[in-house]
Amino acid sequence: MPWSRISGSVSTPKVDVAIDMGNPFLNLTVDGFLKIGTVAATRAAAEDAYHILNKGNVSRRNFEDMLKKMCREGVYWGTIAGLYVGAEYGVERIRGTRDWKNAMIGGAVTGALVSAAGNNKKDRIVIDAITGAAVATAAEFINYLT
Amino acid sequence: MPWSRISGSVSTPKVDVAIDMGNPFLNLTVDGFLKIGTVAATRAAAEDAYHILNKGNVSRRNFEDMLKKMCREGVYWGTIAGLYVGAEYGVERIRGTRDWKNAMIGGAVTGALVSAAGNNKKDRIVIDAITGAAVATAAEFINYLT
Repeated sequence: MPWSRISGSVSTPKVDVAIDMGNPFLNLTVDGFLKIGTVAATRAAAEDAYHILNKGNVSRRNFEDMLKKMCREGVYWGTIAGLYVGAEYGVERIRGTRDWKNAMIGGAVTGALVSAAGNNKKDRIVIDAITGAAVATAAEFINYLT
Repeated sequence: MPWSRISGSVSTPKVDVAIDMGNPFLNLTVDGFLKIGTVAATRAAAEDAYHILNKGNVSRRNFEDMLKKMCREGVYWGTIAGLYVGAEYGVERIRGTRDWKNAMIGGAVTGALVSAAGNNKKDRIVIDAITGAAVATAAEFINYLT
């Protein structure tokens, strides 16, 4: 069961979201979507908050734009994370082992899918697949270290 | 002691590089540099190899450019990874706990440092720190899932 625990602010309240889709593959995908979607939405909010504080005036319009941007970025990055987690899980089931090559293949599949969905040309899709593989492998390596 | 294990190609030969700097902080940093530097150099090589294959002709010049790019990208991303791993380790020592907030703070510190080193303005540095924090947090969350 995916447990998305999100805590922030000074008193760190905790929000636990648990959704059981009755299937490990779907659970992982939904969990990835929720977690990374939250991170992306928070990043968008932090960036906008900094810009608004810098300008010094807060208008209703600013706030509405910020909420829209949070939703858009959250859904976009959440979808990519869901795709990646699903792809890595699938690769793990097919290969039968857990190592950094799963992350690499999952990253390549995700990069190619996201790029293809964005109506890119063949060349761009291959380069995005290579980049996806590199980013996923790097994230996997960094995590073994820390 | 950092063990950088890099395996690739069809017969997956293994290259183990072990450098002991006699200090856990330096060990982690060097290990991050080597591992992520290798990933970045491989990505650059794969991208260039695809472009060269696409054009159909391989010249000595192409190959030299590729090697130069591999070194440049490897050193650049390796340095960022070393900074990040060092920052996360430092944050862990200061806070005394291991959780995703270490990754977030480490990512923010790294983003700000890399941005400041690139002669960016104050605004850009803050945005890069936010982005660094978001990327590190996302990588940490993704790894807990898979």
